Amino acid sequence: MAQRINRQFRLRSHPQGRVKSADFDFVATPVAEPEPGQALIQVVYLSIDPTQRIWMSDREQYMPPVAIGEVMRGGAIGRVVASASERWSVGDLVRGQLGWQDFYLAIDGAPALLSRLPKDLPVPLPAMLGACGTTGITAYFGLLELGQPKPGETLVVSAAAGAVGSVVGQIAKIKGCRAVGIAGGPEKCRWLTADLCFDAAVDYKAPGWREALAAATPDSVDINFENVGGEVMAAVMARMKLGARMPLCGLISGYNVEGSAADDFTPILMKRLAIRGFIVTDFLPRWPEAGRELVGWVQDGRIKHRETIVDGLEQAPAALNRLFDGDNLGKLMVKVSEA
Amino acid sequence: MAQRINRQFRLRSHPQGRVKSADFDFVATPVAEPEPGQALIQVVYLSIDPTQRIWMSDREQYMPPVAIGEVMRGGAIGRVVASASERWSVGDLVRGQLGWQDFYLAIDGAPALLSRLPKDLPVPLPAMLGACGTTGITAYFGLLELGQPKPGETLVVSAAAGAVGSVVGQIAKIKGCRAVGIAGGPEKCRWLTADLCFDAAVDYKAPGWREALAAATPDSVDINFENVGGEVMAAVMARMKLGARMPLCGLISGYNVEGSAADDFTPILMKRLAIRGFIVTDFLPRWPEAGRELVGWVQDGRIKHRETIVDGLEQAPAALNRLFDGDNLGKLMVKVSEA
Repeated sequence: MAQRINRQFRLRSHPQGRVKSADFDFVATPVAEPEPGQALIQVVYLSIDPTQRIWMSDREQYMPPVAIGEVMRGGAIGRVVASASERWSVGDLVRGQLGWQDFYLAIDGAPALLSRLPKDLPVPLPAMLGACGTTGITAYFGLLELGQPKPGETLVVSAAAGAVGSVVGQIAKIKGCRAVGIAGGPEKCRWLTADLCFDAAVDYKAPGWREALAAATPDSVDINFENVGGEVMAAVMARMKLGARMPLCGLISGYNVEGSAADDFTPILMKRLAIRGFIVTDFLPRWPEAGRELVGWVQDGRIKHRETIVDGLEQAPAALNRLFDGDNLGKLMVKVSEA
Repeated sequence: MAQRINRQFRLRSHPQGRVKSADFDFVATPVAEPEPGQALIQVVYLSIDPTQRIWMSDREQYMPPVAIGEVMRGGAIGRVVASASERWSVGDLVRGQLGWQDFYLAIDGAPALLSRLPKDLPVPLPAMLGACGTTGITAYFGLLELGQPKPGETLVVSAAAGAVGSVVGQIAKIKGCRAVGIAGGPEKCRWLTADLCFDAAVDYKAPGWREALAAATPDSVDINFENVGGEVMAAVMARMKLGARMPLCGLISGYNVEGSAADDFTPILMKRLAIRGFIVTDFLPRWPEAGRELVGWVQDGRIKHRETIVDGLEQAPAALNRLFDGDNLGKLMVKVSEA
């Protein structure tokens, strides 16, 4: 067999503003065969998530940032291609933080959050990374645990045509809520209402979007599932009921911006809002339960999913920028090798 | 008896920035004797609270703002001086929203939140407006219900030498917490630690106050009872633990400022904070229970109270400005007539 080559994105500098190729060293090195207790996993699908932009910055954050020289962190699905470990067999599909690279070396006993996917996949492989993966699980706990949706309530979700937002709105529908999505552009809005059965979609790039938001939330807002921050968040907060809940999942509008954001806590006080930040790993022990329920909803068609799949590991930095340009529908991932 | 004259502060314009005399018409009109079903209450102590600055503005807020031409709203204690009502007897002490004026006409059946104080006052009359009044009740529910203090936890409270903050820290001590107060100037800080038994006080006007805050919170911060907003809030948020709680009681640093504040939601996300705004009236049905417990704590010396009492109704606007200058210790009130 030909020598395997591992291409890796190693962080060269903490990006300022948009991510540039020059922020990484893209290096290729030969891969040794696994030694006893090791297995070699080839990355198939690499997840591209807004939070990766946080990890590569040196701002204060919820886990250690990626250090200069380190391989860029990223969730992925891969396949075991060589194994000298009793834990892994060649052919196994593995989900976990495999990183922005072709090959991940799994070492028995080393700390890693890897899990084996079932042989008979219950849903298509990309959905195991998206709607039924960390993305869907983020939507699941953020909405159900922090949002506490009740039938008849109105939910608003920003970045609604994104990976998390599209699942949030659909779970809200399952729970009997009115689901209103905010997204950029008519195509995304049409997808939300026509395909995902959101009750309304607001195009924040269109003139009069604030009035459209008001019209879409005639009974005001009980839950704001916040992914974006900035003026869209402020506009939704102005529509929130007294005592409404706001799970805070992301503030993507600020991730490419240096310095502090200019937000306003006043509505929290005036409307007695309950705001809670969360990270999906807060619920780690309950991931299997969420995964099972999400798989069930995808199988019975109550959660529809869509992926934007970019070809080639070398495209990862450019793909990440697409998230901030709003240039993707559903879950964004990079296809690194054949499934 | 000489004809009674009622002086009233009627709002002439919504203040821009600091409150000015010209924002009010200070008018004097003769007072008629009460008709059947009415009682006349003479204001004794008028409460001066930061939230009054919100009420006189036309910004979006938690109750209707004071309308132009209306008597300025304000909590107070008064005494019934004439009565043709079966509900009220001459000499009764009454607590409620009597307004910035000399006399309040109580009309049976009209909506008003007035309550009669007991004949034998359990604590001095000013404390019935402060530590055992709405002020103390605000501290009580904000800390106990939203803050959920547990023994050994660290509480930080801003505007700690103010009416609410000074009670918050003392209740936290009763509940076994480490209490750290933030206040402006050495006199206030000395009062907090020497008299009120706070574990530490941080003078935010002194150089190196951020380092002092860090030193005062070696185990970081479990609860931030927020009264101020702005850079003091940001500094405390940077010291908060993962999953810490932040009852949001006030944002006084922004009340004299037009436009939106420049705060940053990022720490809510990164630290998974739980922030909840509240207004003391959210807990209205439970005020009597809180009042009883506060009276007990004042009587047994576990809550010490202090009032800054300004003489003369005509001083009310200037008194309000003192709150924003940080120029008062404990509860600020105006003495309108003899008790």
